[in-house]
Amino acid sequence: SQKYLVLSKLTYNALSSIVVPNYKIMSKNLTSRSEDYSKWYNELVVKADLAENSAVRGCMVIKPYGYAIWEKMQAELDRMFKETGHQNAYFPLFVPKSLFEAEEKNAEGFAKECAVVTHYRLQNDPDNPGKLRVDPNAKLEEELVVRPTSEAIIWNTFKGWVQSYRDLPLLINQWANVVRWEMRTRLFLRTAEFLWQEGHTAHATKSEAVAEAKQMNKIYASFAENFMAMPVIQGLKTESERFAGAEDTYCIEALMQDGKALQAGTSHFLGQNFAKAFDVKFANNEGKQDYVWATSWGVSTRLMGALIMTHSDDKGLVLPPNLAPYQVVIVPIYKNDEQFAEISKQAETIMQSLRSQDITVKFDNRTTQRPGHKFAQHELQGVPLRIAIGPKDLESGTVELARRDILTKELVTLNSLTTTVKGLLEEIQNSLFQNALDFRADHITKVETFEEFKTVLEEKAGFISAHWDGSAETEDKIKEITKASIRCIPIDSKLESGLCVFSGKPSKQRVIFAKAY
Amino acid sequence: SQKYLVLSKLTYNALSSIVVPNYKIMSKNLTSRSEDYSKWYNELVVKADLAENSAVRGCMVIKPYGYAIWEKMQAELDRMFKETGHQNAYFPLFVPKSLFEAEEKNAEGFAKECAVVTHYRLQNDPDNPGKLRVDPNAKLEEELVVRPTSEAIIWNTFKGWVQSYRDLPLLINQWANVVRWEMRTRLFLRTAEFLWQEGHTAHATKSEAVAEAKQMNKIYASFAENFMAMPVIQGLKTESERFAGAEDTYCIEALMQDGKALQAGTSHFLGQNFAKAFDVKFANNEGKQDYVWATSWGVSTRLMGALIMTHSDDKGLVLPPNLAPYQVVIVPIYKNDEQFAEISKQAETIMQSLRSQDITVKFDNRTTQRPGHKFAQHELQGVPLRIAIGPKDLESGTVELARRDILTKELVTLNSLTTTVKGLLEEIQNSLFQNALDFRADHITKVETFEEFKTVLEEKAGFISAHWDGSAETEDKIKEITKASIRCIPIDSKLESGLCVFSGKPSKQRVIFAKAY
Repeated sequence: SQKYLVLSKLTYNALSSIVVPNYKIMSKNLTSRSEDYSKWYNELVVKADLAENSAVRGCMVIKPYGYAIWEKMQAELDRMFKETGHQNAYFPLFVPKSLFEAEEKNAEGFAKECAVVTHYRLQNDPDNPGKLRVDPNAKLEEELVVRPTSEAIIWNTFKGWVQSYRDLPLLINQWANVVRWEMRTRLFLRTAEFLWQEGHTAHATKSEAVAEAKQMNKIYASFAENFMAMPVIQGLKTESERFAGAEDTYCIEALMQDGKALQAGTSHFLGQNFAKAFDVKFANNEGKQDYVWATSWGVSTRLMGALIMTHSDDKGLVLPPNLAPYQVVIVPIYKNDEQFAEISKQAETIMQSLRSQDITVKFDNRTTQRPGHKFAQHELQGVPLRIAIGPKDLESGTVELARRDILTKELVTLNSLTTTVKGLLEEIQNSLFQNALDFRADHITKVETFEEFKTVLEEKAGFISAHWDGSAETEDKIKEITKASIRCIPIDSKLESGLCVFSGKPSKQRVIFAKAY
Repeated sequence: SQKYLVLSKLTYNALSSIVVPNYKIMSKNLTSRSEDYSKWYNELVVKADLAENSAVRGCMVIKPYGYAIWEKMQAELDRMFKETGHQNAYFPLFVPKSLFEAEEKNAEGFAKECAVVTHYRLQNDPDNPGKLRVDPNAKLEEELVVRPTSEAIIWNTFKGWVQSYRDLPLLINQWANVVRWEMRTRLFLRTAEFLWQEGHTAHATKSEAVAEAKQMNKIYASFAENFMAMPVIQGLKTESERFAGAEDTYCIEALMQDGKALQAGTSHFLGQNFAKAFDVKFANNEGKQDYVWATSWGVSTRLMGALIMTHSDDKGLVLPPNLAPYQVVIVPIYKNDEQFAEISKQAETIMQSLRSQDITVKFDNRTTQRPGHKFAQHELQGVPLRIAIGPKDLESGTVELARRDILTKELVTLNSLTTTVKGLLEEIQNSLFQNALDFRADHITKVETFEEFKTVLEEKAGFISAHWDGSAETEDKIKEITKASIRCIPIDSKLESGLCVFSGKPSKQRVIFAKAY
């Protein structure tokens, strides 16, 4: 029999009483964060069914539960992009080598991690019956780079779209997969293939392009804080940390629970570099020809890693309600078919009421799993609120409501349930953000000497706010000695005279250092 | 100054009176369909800003207006998939050659059109300063095929997801790009890279898998008819037209205006072929091991081509309201700033009222284009309804409302406008479907002899309903002589004894022949 409608239909399977629970997911031996943070992360991603490694080196499979979170992220970001006038489009996966190399800095920055298509056909291998080999006669005249980023192919296209100032601005976004052949990969954080969005815009003036790059960085910050409940520092990258081919890179930097920084999004002012490389000119309203000004900006499935490492705990994932695939799960507790039928009826009523308030809810009516297993799974998967309904609840008109973030439980009467749930979801969203903000506040340390710098980095970790003389040389040396890099020059920080923590030379502003993912 | 909010804000540019219209889009020299249907199609796709060829052989750029239609298609299909219990996930772009070749028929079917990644790094070309070349030392140990379809990588993954009947069914869908190195390409209809969704499901029983394959083909038919306003014949492919590796291929076949058929979607019952190739077994509820049963199903950006060739005319695109990026466009007609301001106010009121009825509307308040240019552009781009507001309309409390499909205009009073628009959108949707249905009814011809077959094919084209003896030999010969293939064996057709139109041998059922895209 078909079971396609399990999520919305209450189909009861008479086998429920002889079901053997499947404890595959329940295995509680998740390494604790204090024991080994990195191991905890790797285990959690797999056990919470978010993603797993694939047969292709460095490429991941994003599993349905993980992908559902990514879809929520996509929907919100896409809405924010469209509200600011951007339109989606799609450009080819492949970049001919001759286009790829046109903007030299960009090409140089990505050349070492490019997957390259050289042939377009397989054939039967004469030496191995049943096996295939690359057909040596099907070599491409020009090799194709699998896009590591799309500036080259897009600016080559923009050339045909822009003639006059009336064609500007071009405000384009693309949702796509990209490939960067990284040597050391980790699920979500650094994978050979990843999913992202890349905005590419073209403007008539420098100031408009700069404003666009700033605006998109602000949108990223707003998304991170309001949906991911993840506080970020908005700043500018130093020259050595800039995107290859950019004049300025704006970024949002978040702090993970282990005190390491994570670059969560970047927005680049590209000047006229790509317009010059691809000869994209426009006639301004006085009829004069000028090169177009550009930006590009992106966030990726890396955000999934940031989300996990901002909120989760030793029991598993903790999800902010604004990005949870379902905010509430209902688990029935019953001993016979009759009880199950009654509880199911009750659950339907509750779901209708919650959905009328735009709350997403799932009724976990699987008859192949026991309640204990379901509780463990939803805890591991970070469902913000769990409602349990047993026979006694039916009598008393109550349910048990459990919060995932602080692991509390309370009895709630049915008539106040929807209001309570609505209030709690907001509270959880705010509380997760506040906790992360408090943690970050505790882990931004001002230091004045290099000794202090090293001690804080080793003993406390987190962001270090310190004076820097502005030279790449000092930046490199600090990184060489401590492995901490300059995460950004915060855009809202006040100018403040001081002496470089390393060289003792004068400095006008503190910058943020940290070890980073 | 920034212009990010042009679509939602009424920014008035004082330069409007000296604007030089940009006639780029207006060029009305669209080849007529009767003159050259193929040329008409190619021109329309480009002139209506749907897509264009890229610098990569056979790969297209999907432009914002075209992509917005695709997004509408995606949203509806995605909803239909989720309502039937499917979940989205994401699998790698690359398939290691050893996995690709595991299911032999599938591998054989796609081997000749595979883009293959052989290297993972570029380096400076010592012979050409400033140029890059493939680094000969960065050859992959095993070549990676860019997915032409994902059965291999997905079934290799499913192996780890399925142990017992409790893990079944797996109902997975993926939205992705795929690459098939086609030699002759046409925008949307046949491109080297295209976007699609591919469903991949695993079941405990054969009957459940067959039911799934049928269900998904029905969903495709429902989408085609209710959203694309495109009637389709649901049927089964003959053995020679089946998906490589399938036991049965269900399909929906549509008829284009030039009398050629277009395969718009396919749904495959894969038997246990992939389960056996990738060793995916499960323990049934009696503890016995068995191979899993499979389906896969997909539709692609090819649907865009089908949509265009079902409804459009010599003036450009005609879009069914259910898939139009915006269903209504408002064009202001004014001579001075004051009039523009008043009309803009009126337009805001109208938009609020339409949006309250879930009607999508755009106010074309560009000050860089004249009304004539805007009218031509919206006609070319197939916006279902156009509202024009001039100074006289403000006085009389009316607007001019124009239908794109039959090119009629009427004066409508403001107080009845929203109701009228709502009614007309429904009428247009139904009328487009009915017209296409009538056209198809006129172009399904029953024939009894091969002479008749050839005459109808040459003089009338369309679907030919004829008896066939069931042999691949006859099918091949008919195709060789006439270029018409068997599009499908309709699933709802009655059994009817007859004689094969070619061989004269007995036949139990008529099948549908046509020349096809």
